[in-house]
Amino acid sequence: VRIAYQGEPGAYSEAAIMRLGADIDALPCRSFEDVFAAVEEGRASAGILPIENSVGGSIHRNYDLLAQHDIPIVGEVQLRVEHKLLAAPGVRFEDITRIYSHPQALAQCERFLQGLDRVEIVATYDTAGSAKMIGEGGLRDVAAIASERAARVFGLSVLRSGLEDFEANITRFLIIGRTPLTLGKPDKTSIVFSVPNVPGSLLKALTVFAWRDIDLTKLESRPIRGRPWEYLFYVDLAIGRDEPRCARALAQLAEFALSLRTLGSYRAWREPETADTNETPAADPASVQK
Amino acid sequence: VRIAYQGEPGAYSEAAIMRLGADIDALPCRSFEDVFAAVEEGRASAGILPIENSVGGSIHRNYDLLAQHDIPIVGEVQLRVEHKLLAAPGVRFEDITRIYSHPQALAQCERFLQGLDRVEIVATYDTAGSAKMIGEGGLRDVAAIASERAARVFGLSVLRSGLEDFEANITRFLIIGRTPLTLGKPDKTSIVFSVPNVPGSLLKALTVFAWRDIDLTKLESRPIRGRPWEYLFYVDLAIGRDEPRCARALAQLAEFALSLRTLGSYRAWREPETADTNETPAADPASVQK
Repeated sequence: VRIAYQGEPGAYSEAAIMRLGADIDALPCRSFEDVFAAVEEGRASAGILPIENSVGGSIHRNYDLLAQHDIPIVGEVQLRVEHKLLAAPGVRFEDITRIYSHPQALAQCERFLQGLDRVEIVATYDTAGSAKMIGEGGLRDVAAIASERAARVFGLSVLRSGLEDFEANITRFLIIGRTPLTLGKPDKTSIVFSVPNVPGSLLKALTVFAWRDIDLTKLESRPIRGRPWEYLFYVDLAIGRDEPRCARALAQLAEFALSLRTLGSYRAWREPETADTNETPAADPASVQK
Repeated sequence: VRIAYQGEPGAYSEAAIMRLGADIDALPCRSFEDVFAAVEEGRASAGILPIENSVGGSIHRNYDLLAQHDIPIVGEVQLRVEHKLLAAPGVRFEDITRIYSHPQALAQCERFLQGLDRVEIVATYDTAGSAKMIGEGGLRDVAAIASERAARVFGLSVLRSGLEDFEANITRFLIIGRTPLTLGKPDKTSIVFSVPNVPGSLLKALTVFAWRDIDLTKLESRPIRGRPWEYLFYVDLAIGRDEPRCARALAQLAEFALSLRTLGSYRAWREPETADTNETPAADPASVQK
């Protein structure tokens, strides 16, 4: 099993892959588009995408890419994100004049960053990639906000821990692939639909689920390109697609929706809430199908 | 009247300000946070914020900032965005090895960019700022995607026009301030609310508007920081706050919502659909109150 992810080794996406099994091969990719391409071209059996962070919100680019590609969602992983301040060995906190990280990570550590004087904050395109720049460039006045694993991968030291504003800083990742994962009987279904551009349309669409007591865990809207102020709606349902109630709700929605597609039906793998991230045992490797 | 905006002179936000009247003073700011600060501290009488683009979607940071600050929305402007490829005078298209622009602008010109070989695409934090870097740095192998006005401001030439994938590339800007604009009788109301975390909550909230035939023109959700998978909902209503139907709908919503705040009630200033951006006469300067 090889799962493609965006970023450098030590990225949070890679850590999410490791939750699924110790013997899974993780394939680093330059961009989210490349993750889709790796699965489409067979270079990876699956891909992993951050879709939402509990503090920063949705990763909208990945919603767009899910609709543009035809690879189903087959699983979900949640990971508590612990941000560390990393620098070259021997560098002291006082030596730091610049801090590199991804804008999402910077936004999640706002309080820590606001407390710093005379330090320039530089947005980059990757957390682990920031650690790499420091390690490979031998930079001694720069620190990165990234994972502890990124420190090990690029030979850096941890200067500060627990940088995140909220302890409950959790990222949801979706797994996409051609073959289902055996995380268990699907209990979630993700759909994307559009409705006629008339008053009350969205409400009408949502009633098909409420009428059947199907809970919505997420509602996201994205523009329809080329049709100003019309939207695609992405909804996560707390029910598997094979349940008759779900099938009937989707059939009713199809009577009214202009477009409707099921992006996947799957089971979420959740990190036990009480365990420390580093000590959580990985899922049984055998539970991930080839 | 002085209106604060994020970016350098030549930014699309500055062009949106110019729609409102030729004699308005535009105050450039480094960040969206600075736009709020400029209004709060009285350095500007109003601020302008891009909130949504018809192709790229919402500017979520500004939704968050609207909820965090206590400055009402007093108006809206829509602007058709026309992206140009700018370079130093005398530079030919064949000389370009890198293109700078803001990620939103790059995303809006995907087709044009995909057609280029051997050109590195570099994401920056400002469209007009990219033009400034080229102009002030005397760079002769770099081009920027920005507005025609940015070319004039920083002494660059237009190498290519109409780079945007969709002709209907429109950005909606909100105007925030302590004093109302006299764009006319308010016909829109923006609210933000949260609902109990139980199945069917959002639907229940939306029924108070549907029951009174009040149209929703936008629904956006953002995470509540520190409470994973709970959301603030931002809704734009196609009705002024002073209309009894609107007041009654909001009173009913307040019976059920955990939190509810009106962000503002205002009138949208719209660009005439048939006119060219550069030839559209600005609104009567006298229509903007001091």
